Amino acid sequence: MDTNGDPNQPSSPNVRREVEEMQEMSTLRRRNNANSGNGVTDEEEENYTLSVEQVFESKSVPSWKEQLTIRAFVVALFLAVLFSVIVMKLNLTTGIIPSLNVSAGLLGFFFVRLWTGLLEKFGMLRQPFTRQENTVIQTAVVAAYGLAFSGGFGSYLFGMSSRIAGQAPEAKDAKDIKDPQLIWMIGFMFCVSFIGLFALVPLRKIMIIDYKLIYPSGTATSHLINGFHTPEGTKLAKKQVKMLGKFFVGSFFWGFFQWFYTGGDDCGFTSFPTLGLEAYNRKFYFDFSSTYVGVGMICPYIVNLSVLLGGVLSWGLMWPLIEKKSGDWYPDNISSTSLIGLQGYKVFISIAMILGDGLYNFGKVVFYMVLTVVKNITRKRSHLPVSDSDGGDIIPKPTSFDDEKRTQLFLKDQIPLWFALCGYIGVAIISIIALPIIFKPLKWYYIAVAYVLAPVLAFCNAYGCGLTDWSLASTYGKLAIFCIGAWAGEGEGGVVAGLSSCGVMMSIVSTAADLMQDFKTGYMTLTSPKSMFVSQVIGTAMGCFIGPCVFWLFYKAFKDIGFSYSDYPAPYAIVYRNMAILGVEGLGSLPKNCLTLCFVFFAAAIVINLLRDLAPEKIRKYIPLPMAMAIPFYLGSYFAIDMCIGSLILFIWEMVDKAKADQFASAVASGLICGDGLWTMPQSILSLAKVNPPICMKFLSRQMNERVDKFISKL
Amino acid sequence: MDTNGDPNQPSSPNVRREVEEMQEMSTLRRRNNANSGNGVTDEEEENYTLSVEQVFESKSVPSWKEQLTIRAFVVALFLAVLFSVIVMKLNLTTGIIPSLNVSAGLLGFFFVRLWTGLLEKFGMLRQPFTRQENTVIQTAVVAAYGLAFSGGFGSYLFGMSSRIAGQAPEAKDAKDIKDPQLIWMIGFMFCVSFIGLFALVPLRKIMIIDYKLIYPSGTATSHLINGFHTPEGTKLAKKQVKMLGKFFVGSFFWGFFQWFYTGGDDCGFTSFPTLGLEAYNRKFYFDFSSTYVGVGMICPYIVNLSVLLGGVLSWGLMWPLIEKKSGDWYPDNISSTSLIGLQGYKVFISIAMILGDGLYNFGKVVFYMVLTVVKNITRKRSHLPVSDSDGGDIIPKPTSFDDEKRTQLFLKDQIPLWFALCGYIGVAIISIIALPIIFKPLKWYYIAVAYVLAPVLAFCNAYGCGLTDWSLASTYGKLAIFCIGAWAGEGEGGVVAGLSSCGVMMSIVSTAADLMQDFKTGYMTLTSPKSMFVSQVIGTAMGCFIGPCVFWLFYKAFKDIGFSYSDYPAPYAIVYRNMAILGVEGLGSLPKNCLTLCFVFFAAAIVINLLRDLAPEKIRKYIPLPMAMAIPFYLGSYFAIDMCIGSLILFIWEMVDKAKADQFASAVASGLICGDGLWTMPQSILSLAKVNPPICMKFLSRQMNERVDKFISKL
Repeated sequence: MDTNGDPNQPSSPNVRREVEEMQEMSTLRRRNNANSGNGVTDEEEENYTLSVEQVFESKSVPSWKEQLTIRAFVVALFLAVLFSVIVMKLNLTTGIIPSLNVSAGLLGFFFVRLWTGLLEKFGMLRQPFTRQENTVIQTAVVAAYGLAFSGGFGSYLFGMSSRIAGQAPEAKDAKDIKDPQLIWMIGFMFCVSFIGLFALVPLRKIMIIDYKLIYPSGTATSHLINGFHTPEGTKLAKKQVKMLGKFFVGSFFWGFFQWFYTGGDDCGFTSFPTLGLEAYNRKFYFDFSSTYVGVGMICPYIVNLSVLLGGVLSWGLMWPLIEKKSGDWYPDNISSTSLIGLQGYKVFISIAMILGDGLYNFGKVVFYMVLTVVKNITRKRSHLPVSDSDGGDIIPKPTSFDDEKRTQLFLKDQIPLWFALCGYIGVAIISIIALPIIFKPLKWYYIAVAYVLAPVLAFCNAYGCGLTDWSLASTYGKLAIFCIGAWAGEGEGGVVAGLSSCGVMMSIVSTAADLMQDFKTGYMTLTSPKSMFVSQVIGTAMGCFIGPCVFWLFYKAFKDIGFSYSDYPAPYAIVYRNMAILGVEGLGSLPKNCLTLCFVFFAAAIVINLLRDLAPEKIRKYIPLPMAMAIPFYLGSYFAIDMCIGSLILFIWEMVDKAKADQFASAVASGLICGDGLWTMPQSILSLAKVNPPICMKFLSRQMNERVDKFISKL
Repeated sequence: MDTNGDPNQPSSPNVRREVEEMQEMSTLRRRNNANSGNGVTDEEEENYTLSVEQVFESKSVPSWKEQLTIRAFVVALFLAVLFSVIVMKLNLTTGIIPSLNVSAGLLGFFFVRLWTGLLEKFGMLRQPFTRQENTVIQTAVVAAYGLAFSGGFGSYLFGMSSRIAGQAPEAKDAKDIKDPQLIWMIGFMFCVSFIGLFALVPLRKIMIIDYKLIYPSGTATSHLINGFHTPEGTKLAKKQVKMLGKFFVGSFFWGFFQWFYTGGDDCGFTSFPTLGLEAYNRKFYFDFSSTYVGVGMICPYIVNLSVLLGGVLSWGLMWPLIEKKSGDWYPDNISSTSLIGLQGYKVFISIAMILGDGLYNFGKVVFYMVLTVVKNITRKRSHLPVSDSDGGDIIPKPTSFDDEKRTQLFLKDQIPLWFALCGYIGVAIISIIALPIIFKPLKWYYIAVAYVLAPVLAFCNAYGCGLTDWSLASTYGKLAIFCIGAWAGEGEGGVVAGLSSCGVMMSIVSTAADLMQDFKTGYMTLTSPKSMFVSQVIGTAMGCFIGPCVFWLFYKAFKDIGFSYSDYPAPYAIVYRNMAILGVEGLGSLPKNCLTLCFVFFAAAIVINLLRDLAPEKIRKYIPLPMAMAIPFYLGSYFAIDMCIGSLILFIWEMVDKAKADQFASAVASGLICGDGLWTMPQSILSLAKVNPPICMKFLSRQMNERVDKFISKL
């Protein structure tokens, strides 16, 4: 779930070298276990040894052009409009947007099945429906409706309007206001939305194949899509699909059941103070989210433990300590969302640590890329994979059949580096020219600087998302508001400059994470990266039109959008504007010691990474990951606890029945993630139809309960 | 859990002939399944075929006298005092008494183990600790501390005092008051407590062996005790014990976890409106009680479905309809506990139906007993078991090894019929003489009539308890208050007569159910009925002293017991007195049509029973049990839903893996029941130590939640 105020959507995790080994070893073990026929008869054994891709071997993989069908994009367009309307309405009402990716995959499957089924009946079906086509639809839909969120129609973009400015305390100059217009919004979307695609395309091999980042949501979706298209007659695969189905249904109905008890703020299982009220106030609680339990089952133990460690360090130790300095380090009695209070420490320290880790890894990647190029030139050894020369410690890679097959197809259709570079530079130049025309206060050099730094931030976000399934797009957006706003300064339209640069930054980093998440799904379903890229581009183009149009529709149809009393209060628009107003005051407005702490954590991230790379194998696997540690800094530990419970379940399962756990854990995890994911669809529709949950499950302290009971008895 | 106002403690279910068959067939299937070696290697197979008693065959069963050791009664005395203090304090504070039977069994095991362990160390152990001895301790403790509840120190007995009379609206004459005194209380206890033992002893064979009543709590306790004493080296038994242990621990901690959220009335999982608030108000909800889920797993499907049907019929249909007549059939605006309102319908209709079923079955038993005696005399065929001549349809009985062994030992040590008869008549005569001396308004003929009817009611209660685990002692007590109170009439000390006859009735029916529950445990642990009976007698004698003494201690130590402002308000004392005040007004005070409805349901119970006996086999198994149907009439359907969920779990388990379900279901169910049962011990201690749960998990409608949120924000 994302809020405009909270980081962006869950996407997905992993760790470099050791995870790679862990995975491959477990794959090997899995096959060995299967071969040893643990409790399995001879007849079954043959089927049990088949891996996913062996099961699919009978099905040929269509060429990348065949994967892109017209029917796929028709269905994608339909779903993109549907989801954009849902997301837009949620943007303007509660501001909380759940992830609809799974619904996209499922409905895509459903509609094309219907289509092909009908055609088949009349004997007119020329091309069968493949899992690759399914992936293409899902990619396009996600790219398109994602813009309805990252376009900031409920946050930064609408925050520039005179209507929101009227409700804010200051900055009411004409310079600080930009009212929405359909034309400039579409133009703006086209300028900022494509650049993220080009920024990370060259790194896809490193993130998916070399780093083997997990991207739990992407992995789960691919299991779902593979499940839909599994050929018949294969026992283990069938059993896995059945298992996935069971947990899918269970997770869906669990979400449904939970819904009934959420009739108010802080109601329901997501607010269950499982570890007590004190811990709940510090965001330590198990929130019964089947999504994050599933994510925890997919992520390696070290990721989950790092997240928990980060949570304990920040919410358990640092924030309480800093809170004690309230009135000294930062003013008392300020709003809890204000960046000059505790919130400022949370946002900036977590960003600092993420940047430290991201920069270190980005630097490492660039270093080895340069090294490879240099080697290629000097030794004339071409086509040497980057990872082979990565670090001094060359470890023999045991690869499974699935990994080999997937890697082969993932590397088959190349998107040339020059294409990505030209694309990036081309779009950047257009933006640098066009954006200052749209937003006067946004000088061309702000954008140029942003575009120089953007790939690093995009890398950081995609990397973090690969590790923990969280995309922190809006957090990067806040960074941009603050930095660019301060640079532009007060009286120079700093507010609009800040808010528009937030849009630039959010679009890049959020697209980058989505793209990589989709590449992971593509990798797991043997979809060509080329067709994925094309699908992403087409989806983005759709979104650039659909998003502004849908917003315009709402804006024109409901005259009181943005006023707190209306049905469409767009609550985050004013929050973003207030952040921008603060931002123009510059670094000096940051609370005391915040910058120092940022430096400390930035350095710590680099040091920890260095330790991880230099320490011997034995110790290395116990060193936490700074990126994973930093994410709960801002969000709280509740999802860390969910993830650790996922780990615990897996751990116990492996202890009890290793073979079964290896065979079914990812199916169970995918079922949990996808079932909960699908529930967000009817949930959103219920919310749009104003069907509110009937009951509030409330948690009160005993003392408070006594008072409330007295109050109720008086009614 | 019992309240003084609510029926007595859970005890246990079953159905006659078809259940008998079902069980035996499943036992046979179990053994066949085991023999077929479903996924089991040859080595394991031998162990898997062993039933519980085959596992125990290496251990000799001590004679009934050997089962009664001095150490057992020393431990029992200690535990009886401990539990009596706990129960007494709960009586006087909240009035809600949980069942501590499992704790008794467990602590008994623990202390004797400690004792024998110490002796063994010094080489002084003469007699090893057996499961029979364990059962004896548990029986004595339950008998003793049971009197602290059924003695009515928090309800009818204390309700006679001048202190409570001062708080009631009327009946303040000296005739209507009897202040507590240690001497008469002990005398009273001795008069009424033993009669229940003699009343049902002759029927034990019919209830345990012929009717094969289940008594879920007794069965669960026996599994626990068997588990403690299982000899080593037997795989299946070990696995079952392990399974029991796992669910025991799980259920215990689930109870512990739930506790934290019950910091107020209607708080926590026991008030979870699982099916919505409207259904909750009609007592339709799943209350997450692991005890009743376990009970549901042990009871046959037809019992659980009957209970649910009864709940739907009463709380879903009848009570809402009657409620609509409020102001017409019965006065508006009366307290919800008043018997002249809806409560009256609930109590009297459920009693009527239970009496109908009970009388029918009692009549049937007597009829066949007489028939057997006649046959014996005429045909000189002795030792013909009653059930063999039961009905025209003689069905060949497939008996398992366990059943044979258990039956053999259960029938070995006989308690002669003349002994029981003499005992009953003797105690009755003493009571008839002594009780009118203690309570002036209680005429000797009231008691004589009560003692003529008592065995039937005791049979009804023990039978119902065998079916559903609920002992409805306090409901029978209410019947006595009403009938005897009305008979004595106003101005003749009807209040004291009613309350004291309530004591007579409650003691008999509650002891009878406890006794039969214990006989079931004894049957399952090969404990001699003779030693069980002796243990019960000794335990009861202990209780007759301990109960009044502990009450006296509280009464003298805390001067304000019984006042609503004090720490010991004894809330049910005033409730019982008010019932008695109503009762003296006689049948005329019953709400409109209540008596008619009672007759209808009484007749219906008999008709349904006739149908069950006359219908062909195929149809019979779908006809519900009136006894089981009547229990939720008063209590509500929540435990019916728990039990049906238990059924559902078992049903699905049997579908997925029949062999495993047959092997482990009763272990799982026993674990669930016993774990929750043990938790009541620390829960009671926490409550006595005034450690209150910190959080209230509250369920409010959305509208109410809005108001409450506003109220809270104003604080």
